[in-house]
Amino acid sequence: MESDWIKKFSGILGPMPPRVLRGIGDDVACLVSPATDNLLWTTDSQREGVHFRWDWMTPREVGSRLLVVNLSDVYVKGGTPVSALVALGIPKNFPEERIFSFYEGLADACRRFDCPVVGGDISRATGGFDAVLSLLARSPAGRFPGRDGLLPGDMLYLLGRPGLAKAGYSALLSGLSDHQAMAESVSAFCRPRTYPWFSELVNAEDQVVATMDTSDGLGQAIFAMADQSGVSVRLDPPENWLDHLQRPSSLLGQDPFGMAWDGGEDYDILFAVRPGVGGDAISRIQEQIRGEPEKLIPLGEVVVRHAGDQTPSVTMTGKNRRQVRLERTGFDHTR
Amino acid sequence: MESDWIKKFSGILGPMPPRVLRGIGDDVACLVSPATDNLLWTTDSQREGVHFRWDWMTPREVGSRLLVVNLSDVYVKGGTPVSALVALGIPKNFPEERIFSFYEGLADACRRFDCPVVGGDISRATGGFDAVLSLLARSPAGRFPGRDGLLPGDMLYLLGRPGLAKAGYSALLSGLSDHQAMAESVSAFCRPRTYPWFSELVNAEDQVVATMDTSDGLGQAIFAMADQSGVSVRLDPPENWLDHLQRPSSLLGQDPFGMAWDGGEDYDILFAVRPGVGGDAISRIQEQIRGEPEKLIPLGEVVVRHAGDQTPSVTMTGKNRRQVRLERTGFDHTR
Repeated sequence: MESDWIKKFSGILGPMPPRVLRGIGDDVACLVSPATDNLLWTTDSQREGVHFRWDWMTPREVGSRLLVVNLSDVYVKGGTPVSALVALGIPKNFPEERIFSFYEGLADACRRFDCPVVGGDISRATGGFDAVLSLLARSPAGRFPGRDGLLPGDMLYLLGRPGLAKAGYSALLSGLSDHQAMAESVSAFCRPRTYPWFSELVNAEDQVVATMDTSDGLGQAIFAMADQSGVSVRLDPPENWLDHLQRPSSLLGQDPFGMAWDGGEDYDILFAVRPGVGGDAISRIQEQIRGEPEKLIPLGEVVVRHAGDQTPSVTMTGKNRRQVRLERTGFDHTR
Repeated sequence: MESDWIKKFSGILGPMPPRVLRGIGDDVACLVSPATDNLLWTTDSQREGVHFRWDWMTPREVGSRLLVVNLSDVYVKGGTPVSALVALGIPKNFPEERIFSFYEGLADACRRFDCPVVGGDISRATGGFDAVLSLLARSPAGRFPGRDGLLPGDMLYLLGRPGLAKAGYSALLSGLSDHQAMAESVSAFCRPRTYPWFSELVNAEDQVVATMDTSDGLGQAIFAMADQSGVSVRLDPPENWLDHLQRPSSLLGQDPFGMAWDGGEDYDILFAVRPGVGGDAISRIQEQIRGEPEKLIPLGEVVVRHAGDQTPSVTMTGKNRRQVRLERTGFDHTR
């Protein structure tokens, strides 16, 4: 059975690019070592009943999503995909056609982003279906825009539509997913998008000093960066920054700020730009997202952490310009 | 919780070698690209209730085993480990100390084999605990000893003790694991060994043309190689090749040949040596295993596949030197 599946997967994946000397079907994959300074490497999973439900997404969407959630981490750090490995956990009596559809969605995404699957593992799962993808990428720079890269004075930005995925998730949970006003939200959750051009930006612009996707929530990401950088953060986003959540949040009866802050699964990009470093990062981004200028949100400023504070303070300008202290929350997949 | 775990894991792993620019704690790991021709890459998992049970192995043993089963594939193909990623699936209300013990066993093995864990993923599992490791290795050669490397006339060898792991597994299942005669078998199952020096051999000796570990069973491995090489196989091992199974098999009431052929989880090395190619592979191996010469088993010969046969014929010399046809079986983790 396992070897039949591997033959079928191999057919679905199609021919490999020349950098793949051995792909799926042997004990290890063999790649031409990319001529690059650094390798970036990440792993992320999609688990039935944790990240998705089969009545929410097609198997093809799950396959595509598995690649995209990994690509997201690579693009935000300035990487170019090399290839991927996929380990599957398959429950007993699982419908075979669903596995193949999943693989077709994955293979399509792999072709779209030039990131071939070169091997993997198949095991029986004792719970729901799970798929773990490991993604290898190359990166030309010695520079790495880490979570710990913030300095006071840096400007924080968000690229994306915070809270939309949470709105889609809530719509799916509550049976509102067919409502026309929810289409964009459901799509954000089921078919997250990623930004290959952001990788070039990171490598071209020394101004971009810290980057992170918001897969675990915007609040979580801001706290993680501030925590690892030893700084605090003062947020002052434009008044209309959550306008895209107005209709979804009122239909769902949820607070838009909570959706954006705690949501998770957005795969937006949180990043910092350092004033005083030459460059053109912001206008390059504006050029990339022309037509959707509202997707670039100036969030606020990195500030000095008070002496003696073990943890970052994150405040936001509220009504009457008062600073409101925010809590670290966000989505924890282990809970 | 997730970020607390990551800090704890980072402490257990300890300092990273210089080739790791960014390890655990950011969205991707960043490595100095190794100066090498090829990269080898593999992934393998350990799943509670599929590969192990917690009453069979300590959490430390599970952690170590996770690395070793991956290393096995890399060493047989001539690779040198670079680093590893680990994706964990953790059930609700899982004891934390067990996660940390697992990680300590993994970290110990990582130090022993110079293969640091540089990142990973933590999710909730809906079934038992699972851990998927992805291993990156470098390989100097353009030569890859693939499963498809056999030609008629090649001599097949096995390095190891076939069936011992199956004996250990059966002893654990049947409550015989504390029996003194089972100690070696239980150890083979719970603490599989691997052969780092085999990697050097592969790179030094062009004679070694095809290699594969027997993690899915000896029979499975022989059929996979013969299948992918388009050849057949005639086995004629020495009469005493399964002597190490005498006591365990009689205690368990099992057929020693079946244990060796179908067992799986042995992580022995099946390999082929090509006569006529200069080299010294066999005496090098004998030098490495001096004191245990019986671990090198000449299995038989690769022969031409009959015209029209879609699948390999695998025969073995039986009583009165008659050739007995063998079936492809072995352990399928998806069943």
